[in-house]
Amino acid sequence: MSRKHDHPCAIAEALNILGDRWTLLIIREAFYGATRFGEFLTNTGISRNLLTERLSQLVEADILERTPFADRGTSHAYALTVKGRALDTVVMALTEWGNSYLYGDGEEPVLARDEASGEIIRRIEPVTSDGQIIARQNIVIEAGPGGDGRTLSRISKAKSHPFAE
Amino acid sequence: MSRKHDHPCAIAEALNILGDRWTLLIIREAFYGATRFGEFLTNTGISRNLLTERLSQLVEADILERTPFADRGTSHAYALTVKGRALDTVVMALTEWGNSYLYGDGEEPVLARDEASGEIIRRIEPVTSDGQIIARQNIVIEAGPGGDGRTLSRISKAKSHPFAE
Repeated sequence: MSRKHDHPCAIAEALNILGDRWTLLIIREAFYGATRFGEFLTNTGISRNLLTERLSQLVEADILERTPFADRGTSHAYALTVKGRALDTVVMALTEWGNSYLYGDGEEPVLARDEASGEIIRRIEPVTSDGQIIARQNIVIEAGPGGDGRTLSRISKAKSHPFAE
Repeated sequence: MSRKHDHPCAIAEALNILGDRWTLLIIREAFYGATRFGEFLTNTGISRNLLTERLSQLVEADILERTPFADRGTSHAYALTVKGRALDTVVMALTEWGNSYLYGDGEEPVLARDEASGEIIRRIEPVTSDGQIIARQNIVIEAGPGGDGRTLSRISKAKSHPFAE
């Protein structure tokens, strides 16, 4: 991969790992239960070289963990770590956006459904610690403890309520 | 950008547009209020050539709309469309993951806060149409109406509850 982003930003840091055409497809497959090199290869359409590289990067980033198969000396299984599983909301948010805005109603290739209500999942929302949905117009952004001078300068000029209508 | 993904999948289609190191940083800036070429340039660190290309792709994909500034013949303003604004959950989910797992508590560069509760936003959740949080163990995936033979084959081998612990 080319030069990394170096300004303090959670999205920039996340894109240093996830920001390419393939990585989130590998992670999608890991959620869907793929564990073997060949499964990731077949289900994503990635090349062998690129898959080898991306799997190593995901292990290095502690998103996947690699364990040897007992039955095969040279073969490994890959599984999501806790940090990897925490990408579930990113996967769900991309799925929902792609289904709604790139395919549209009645054209979705894959759907996620809530077994309890029977509903197709259409809403992903920020919620408070006690589970109340947070209204977009109440969300403000602010420099955090890890921000630097560039962060302060950038945030001071930003809209106070970036997700309000 | 290189060859597009061609298997029916909302994430793959989304990555055909968003899957690089820069595009989601441009979208982050558009949420934060950037409208001018120079603002995107300064706040992301992208090169001029790549920014020109990415802005055109985002306009083409109906994520940004470009309008001329009345006062400057050659200058344009860029703003998120409805389709672009719907990426708010992707931006929030990446921010939350990056803050929690790449920076950690007390090291976050930028925070999102709920003005109503005063809480820093830490949870992004799938919810039903009437706002109930959907438990991860109740989420199943299934082939949708836009799936093809490859989708059926891939999904038939997938875990039924991909986001369960």
